[in-house]
Amino acid sequence: VGNDNRPEPAGTERGTERVEAFSDGVFAIAITLLILDVKVPRSPGTSLDLLRELLHLWPSYFALVLSFVMIGIYWANHHYVFKLFEKTDHGLNLLNLLLLLCISFLPFPTAVLGDYILDQTNQVTAATFYSVGLLLPAVSWTLMWLYACYGGRLVDHRLEPRVLRILTAKYVGSVVVYSIAVLVSLIAFKLGVALCAGLTLLYLTPPHFPALRATGRARA
Amino acid sequence: VGNDNRPEPAGTERGTERVEAFSDGVFAIAITLLILDVKVPRSPGTSLDLLRELLHLWPSYFALVLSFVMIGIYWANHHYVFKLFEKTDHGLNLLNLLLLLCISFLPFPTAVLGDYILDQTNQVTAATFYSVGLLLPAVSWTLMWLYACYGGRLVDHRLEPRVLRILTAKYVGSVVVYSIAVLVSLIAFKLGVALCAGLTLLYLTPPHFPALRATGRARA
Amino acid sequence: VGNDNRPEPAGTERGTERVEAFSDGVFAIAITLLILDVKVPRSPGTSLDLLRELLHLWPSYFALVLSFVMIGIYWANHHYVFKLFEKTDHGLNLLNLLLLLCISFLPFPTAVLGDYILDQTNQVTAATFYSVGLLLPAVSWTLMWLYACYGGRLVDHRLEPRVLRILTAKYVGSVVVYSIAVLVSLIAFKLGVALCAGLTLLYLTPPHFPALRATGRARA
Amino acid sequence: VGNDNRPEPAGTERGTERVEAFSDGVFAIAITLLILDVKVPRSPGTSLDLLRELLHLWPSYFALVLSFVMIGIYWANHHYVFKLFEKTDHGLNLLNLLLLLCISFLPFPTAVLGDYILDQTNQVTAATFYSVGLLLPAVSWTLMWLYACYGGRLVDHRLEPRVLRILTAKYVGSVVVYSIAVLVSLIAFKLGVALCAGLTLLYLTPPHFPALRATGRARA
Repeated sequence: VGNDNRPEPAGTERGTERVEAFSDGVFAIAITLLILDVKVPRSPGTSLDLLRELLHLWPSYFALVLSFVMIGIYWANHHYVFKLFEKTDHGLNLLNLLLLLCISFLPFPTAVLGDYILDQTNQVTAATFYSVGLLLPAVSWTLMWLYACYGGRLVDHRLEPRVLRILTAKYVGSVVVYSIAVLVSLIAFKLGVALCAGLTLLYLTPPHFPALRATGRARA
Repeated sequence: VGNDNRPEPAGTERGTERVEAFSDGVFAIAITLLILDVKVPRSPGTSLDLLRELLHLWPSYFALVLSFVMIGIYWANHHYVFKLFEKTDHGLNLLNLLLLLCISFLPFPTAVLGDYILDQTNQVTAATFYSVGLLLPAVSWTLMWLYACYGGRLVDHRLEPRVLRILTAKYVGSVVVYSIAVLVSLIAFKLGVALCAGLTLLYLTPPHFPALRATGRARA
Repeated sequence: VGNDNRPEPAGTERGTERVEAFSDGVFAIAITLLILDVKVPRSPGTSLDLLRELLHLWPSYFALVLSFVMIGIYWANHHYVFKLFEKTDHGLNLLNLLLLLCISFLPFPTAVLGDYILDQTNQVTAATFYSVGLLLPAVSWTLMWLYACYGGRLVDHRLEPRVLRILTAKYVGSVVVYSIAVLVSLIAFKLGVALCAGLTLLYLTPPHFPALRATGRARA
Repeated sequence: VGNDNRPEPAGTERGTERVEAFSDGVFAIAITLLILDVKVPRSPGTSLDLLRELLHLWPSYFALVLSFVMIGIYWANHHYVFKLFEKTDHGLNLLNLLLLLCISFLPFPTAVLGDYILDQTNQVTAATFYSVGLLLPAVSWTLMWLYACYGGRLVDHRLEPRVLRILTAKYVGSVVVYSIAVLVSLIAFKLGVALCAGLTLLYLTPPHFPALRATGRARA
C-alpha cells in the first residue's frame, strides 16, 4: 500500500496483502490440523495389536493425504489468483472469508471419511459427505472469482479477456465435476471418491497459461 | 518503525506492526480451531446412522459459522482500527492481550452452544454462556478503543473528533446490545441467540465513513 | 539482512528476523491452544446441570488466564530482548529452541492444574507441577540471556553494562522466585500458586529503563 | 520479487519467499501441536495418584522432546537450503508440499511412541513406526534437494560443486541411517530409538561449511 505513493483514504485499504497473509495463516493451520483427526488406537483395559490397528487406519491416512494436497492446491491457487487482483473490496473480503470457512471445515469431513469409509452401513454417507466437503470450497472459490472478475472488476485490467474466460471455465468446471462426484458417491461411493482424488491429481500438473506471459506482469 | 528515520530509544518500540502481526496469528488460529470442537460421531461397540448423526450436528455447524464470522469481523476491525492508531503503548498492549484472550476463549462457548442448545434442561445456560462469550470481546474491544482515544491519546491526531465519536458510539452500542442479548437469553434463549446472530449480520454490511475519507489517510 | 548491504557469507545468516518470526508463530499458537484443554462438560447417558459444571470449571479458567498472560509476557519480552541483540548464532538458536519447547509445553501443566487443583489427593502435585511448568521457561530464558550477554557477546555493544546487569539480575531473580514457588507449592500449594500469579502481575507493570533511553536506539 | 525490478510474467512467480513463509507456518504449528498428544491422566469415577501418572508419562515427554528438536532442525535446515536456491518451480513446490506433509504427520508417530513404548506387546511396532515417521521427512527432504540440484537446476550457480556434493552426501547419508534405524527397531527397538536420537544430536552440532564462505553470499 505504502509503495504506491498515492494518497489513500483511511479505512479503505484496498491492497490484498493483509487478506493474503491472514488467508495463508488459515491455510497453514488447517493443513496441519488434519493430523489431529488421526487418533492413536486405544482400548482401555484390554491389549491390542498395534501393528494391525495402525494398518487399519489406512483410510485415515488416505483421507489425510487427499485433503492435505487439496488445501495445498487451494493455497497455491490463492496466491496465483490474488496476484491477478489489483485491489480488494468489502465483497471480496467476505467471499474470501467464506472460502476460508470452507477450508477450515475440511478437517471434519476428512475425519468422517477416515472413520467410516470401511463401515458398510455408513460408507455411502461418509463418501458423499466428503465430496460435499470438497464441493463447498470449490463453490466459494468460484463465487470469489466471478465476483472479482465481473462484479467488482478487481482484476488487473491488463489481463486479456481470453485468460479470464479460460480461468472462469476451469473454476466453473471444477464445481461441476465435484457436484457430479457428490451424486456419484450416492450410487457408487468408491467411484465418487476416485473422482475427487482424480480431480486433485489433475490440479497437480503444472499450470500452463501462455496468454498470461504475453500480457506481462500483473502485480509484482 | 525503521521507515520513520527518526531516532527512537531502545526498548520503547511504539509502532503497531508487531502487535498487529501477533494478533493476526491469534485470530487465524482461533478461527481455524473452531472446527476441532465439531466431533466426529462415534459410538464404540454399537452401529449408528451416520447421516442422522451428521444432520443432528446442525447446532454445531450453526455455532461454528456464527463464531467464524464473529472472529473474522474482529480481525477486519482490528486492522481497520490499528490503522487509526499512530503508536502503541504498554496500556494498549495489555488491553489488546485481553482482547486476544477473549477471542481465543470463543471456541469454548461455541462448543458449549453446539452441544447443549438442543438439550432442554441446559439450552438456556448454553445460549446465555454463548452470549457472554460474545459480550467479553466486545467489552475488551471497547476498553481498548476508549483507552486509545481518550486515555493514551494514541489515535492519529488528524482524525476529526466527530469520527471518533461515531466509532465510540458504535462500539459502546455493541456492548449494550450484547448485554441485552445475555439478559434476553435468560428469558427467551432463541431470541438471545437471534440477537447475537443479527448483530453479526449487521457488521457484515460494508463500513461507510465519509468523514474519514475527508480527513485523508491516517497511516499508510 | 538485505538492508545492510554488507556482503555476507551464505549459510551464516546472523540477523534475528527469522528466529523472531518463527518464535512469534510458536507463541501465538501456544497461547491459542490453551483453550483446547478446557473441555466441554459431557456425561454420556446421563443428564447434567450445565451451569454448575461450567462454574466448577473455574480452576481451568484461572489456569487459562494465568498461562495466557504468562505466554503474552514472554512474547513481549522476547521482542524486547531480541531488539537488544545485534545478531544471532548457533548457540542462541538452540537456546531459543529450548525456550520455545518450554513455552509449547505450558498448555500441559496448565491443563493439569485446572483438572486437579480441587482434587484433595492431588492438588499439591498439580500446583507443584504447574510451578515447575513456569520455572522451566524462566530457566531457559535466563540461559539464553546469559549466553547472549556473556558467552556469545551478541548484545548491542552500545548498551551500558549497567543495563545488562539490571536485566541479568531481573531474569536470575525470576528463576529464584519460581524455584521458591516450586518448594512452597510442596508445603502450601495455595501460596505456591499465589506466588506464581503474583510474579506474573509484577511483570504486567510497565517496564522502566531510563538507562536504555540514554544510550539511544539499539536496533531499529 | 518486487525488488528485482525485472519484468516478470504473471503467474510464474519464482521467488521462494511465499513457499518459505507457508512452510514456516506449518513448521511452527506442527512443533506446537506435539504437546496436544500428551494427555492429562484421567480415570473417571476412580481416584488416581497424579504424581505417579505424570512420571509414568516419561516416554511421552521423551518423544515430545525428540520430535520437537527434529522439527526444529528441519525448520533451520529449510531456511538454510532455501537460501541456496535461486528460484523455485512447480516440481520443487510439490516436493516441498510432500516434505510438509511428512512434517505435519510427525505428531502421530510421536504420540504412538509415547503411548506404546512401555507396552511389551507393542513396543517393537511403536519404535519401528516412529523410525518410519522420521525416515519419511528425510526421504522427501533428499528428493527435494536432489530435484533442486540436479533436476531443476534451481541452486545458486555460484556454489562450488564440491559443496553440493557434500550436502548431497549428508542428506543421502541421513536417509541411509534412518533406514537402518527402521530395520534395527524391528530387532532391538531400544537401539533403533537410540539411533534416531543419536542422529538428532549429531544435527545439533554447529554446521561448518568453509567452502560456502569462500564462494560468497548466495542470496541475501
